Amino acid sequence: MGRLTGGDPSLLRRINSAVVLHALRGADAPTLTDLTRITGLSRPTVEGVMEGLFEAGLVVESVPDGGQARRQGRPARRFRFRAEAGHLLGIEIGPHRVSALLSGLDGRIIGAGAREVSETAGADDRLDKVRAVVADLLRRTGVARSSLRAVGVGSPGIVEADGTVRLGTALPGWTGLALGERLRRSFRCPVLVENDANAAAVAEHWKGAATESDDIVFVLAGLSPGAGSLIGGRLHRGFGGAAGEIGALHLLGREATPERLLSTTGTPLDPLDEPAVADVFTKARQGDVRAQAAVERFVQRLVHDVAALVLALDPELVVVGGWATELDDVLDPLRSELARYCLRPPRVTLSLLGEAAVATGALRLALDHVEEQLFAVEGTVTARR
Amino acid sequence: MGRLTGGDPSLLRRINSAVVLHALRGADAPTLTDLTRITGLSRPTVEGVMEGLFEAGLVVESVPDGGQARRQGRPARRFRFRAEAGHLLGIEIGPHRVSALLSGLDGRIIGAGAREVSETAGADDRLDKVRAVVADLLRRTGVARSSLRAVGVGSPGIVEADGTVRLGTALPGWTGLALGERLRRSFRCPVLVENDANAAAVAEHWKGAATESDDIVFVLAGLSPGAGSLIGGRLHRGFGGAAGEIGALHLLGREATPERLLSTTGTPLDPLDEPAVADVFTKARQGDVRAQAAVERFVQRLVHDVAALVLALDPELVVVGGWATELDDVLDPLRSELARYCLRPPRVTLSLLGEAAVATGALRLALDHVEEQLFAVEGTVTARR
Repeated sequence: MGRLTGGDPSLLRRINSAVVLHALRGADAPTLTDLTRITGLSRPTVEGVMEGLFEAGLVVESVPDGGQARRQGRPARRFRFRAEAGHLLGIEIGPHRVSALLSGLDGRIIGAGAREVSETAGADDRLDKVRAVVADLLRRTGVARSSLRAVGVGSPGIVEADGTVRLGTALPGWTGLALGERLRRSFRCPVLVENDANAAAVAEHWKGAATESDDIVFVLAGLSPGAGSLIGGRLHRGFGGAAGEIGALHLLGREATPERLLSTTGTPLDPLDEPAVADVFTKARQGDVRAQAAVERFVQRLVHDVAALVLALDPELVVVGGWATELDDVLDPLRSELARYCLRPPRVTLSLLGEAAVATGALRLALDHVEEQLFAVEGTVTARR
Repeated sequence: MGRLTGGDPSLLRRINSAVVLHALRGADAPTLTDLTRITGLSRPTVEGVMEGLFEAGLVVESVPDGGQARRQGRPARRFRFRAEAGHLLGIEIGPHRVSALLSGLDGRIIGAGAREVSETAGADDRLDKVRAVVADLLRRTGVARSSLRAVGVGSPGIVEADGTVRLGTALPGWTGLALGERLRRSFRCPVLVENDANAAAVAEHWKGAATESDDIVFVLAGLSPGAGSLIGGRLHRGFGGAAGEIGALHLLGREATPERLLSTTGTPLDPLDEPAVADVFTKARQGDVRAQAAVERFVQRLVHDVAALVLALDPELVVVGGWATELDDVLDPLRSELARYCLRPPRVTLSLLGEAAVATGALRLALDHVEEQLFAVEGTVTARR
């Protein structure tokens, strides 16, 4: 109750602005009369709010179709939300690839770009690639850098609230990197850094395999598996930002690491040597017995880790992404294992967004940030961090 | 944004009522002038709200001290929240004991009662004991049954939103029991049933070891270990109400059950045979080597289960209750294990409420329910289920 500001006269005004903006974005070129009907607000209230939105550049008069204009004597003015009033970036920084998605304020994607990067590249080189991808994307789409309102970034590792990577073993030079601060130098807008699995969870909920569920676990399968979860539709980061760091779970059972599990020679694989890893899976498909055994060990580990997460969180849905999107062999063992231990086993499905999941989630987080500013009403919309 | 009701004229009125009620409960017999100052509301607004609270019986004029009344010519009227306008019960139903706590609308406990019950008692017998404890408690405190506004119940097992026990192996005849429905026949007010570990988590956060933290895991150690967690100060039940059911975690590692781990003979203990279990711990303390080994196995299991939960949820604080409150040997292994696997290991502490934790949490849940009705403001206070 501490946050209630009973005497605040601007509360209702802000609620009304949010309601009108929301209606504007949802409707197809509404008139003032439409907005009055949709929102239930009085005409003077709607007019007052619209004046403010005009001034902020968020609303513009919609030019009617020629035919309609002729048919009516003097058509009512129609309005639309100016999605082009600002832009957002969603960036993924991965071991082998950096990529970016660009959208307007409505979140619709208007451009994408990606570059390969060596898994041995240091932080400076990797950030240079990020900047190059972004510069190229802005140039190709003709969007000015000054039009960016927020940038979301998905990165491996445990990420602090200020965008510092507390631990990131998947990328060279990543642990301790002030990633948010470094990227903020390239942009004049807020830069939000998020763990990659967390970003992917948000993405699948937004426009992937989990649009129908608010309680999900997203598993980013790989040699350094990670997981992100939404609880009641909201990202659960944990107190220290380390929720879902199931990569350490196997240590509890004193079992071998994934690198060792996947090895067919007894020598652990290099976690960043994806070709070698892919080779094991390929050989397994071709019938190589040792490779099959290795893959089976790997799948068993993944299943164990996910089952522990499911027992702790009890989600409605588990979405499996990362490598596993190429592994037909993962879903069935996972389902049967969960059925053994859970009274009401969650549904298990593969990621729909695949390679685009992390960047898409990063874009959504940038959009969330901007929408909070647009729609912020104290006590009704809670800040993300 | 879907919940915003921009045109609702009663929103501000309800916020104002909540603010005034909150101020009334927090201040010591405030005057109208005090309330105006505390809330920042206008005098007419405060007067209007107070009128409604009078009518609802929630506010009464506070009789001033004799001395103060004489000193001033005509003292300003003072008011107080009528905590006695209604009452709440918090009930624990356990394997060996049922207990109840009674409070007024301010949550201050005004009475308590408990009865032993056999671990072999069926559901009917156990519920009879509950009713007897409650009847006795109400009689002793002189509180009319009709004054009860809500009843909270903490029970072992996975509890559905409607109060049905989906799985409850710790008590005979408990699985499938319509516990909420059965108890509702004895009360004319809402009856809220919650998993015992969940209730205990709420209690420790309210007035136990976790008052300073909003992100906690409570571990109810025992032969059927359970856990409850608060995320951002709110109970996390999971999609199917089964979050934290870590009793099944050991199955993942194909390890032995706690009953087997604690056995010194090779024959598993009866999970409900607490004397036999206590005997193992006593013997261990007395230096019996086989008992010590059994306790060590048990502690190791508990540590493993809790560590998995911590990796999944990343809480700020772990509170250990149940048996473990008698086990000095649990905290240190738990802390060192968590330090090994977690970047930022949570603090680990023992329950402060001990045996009273579950009933206290059940009382708090009843209080939450009533407060939601008193303070409910759509969009600012979210319903619990």
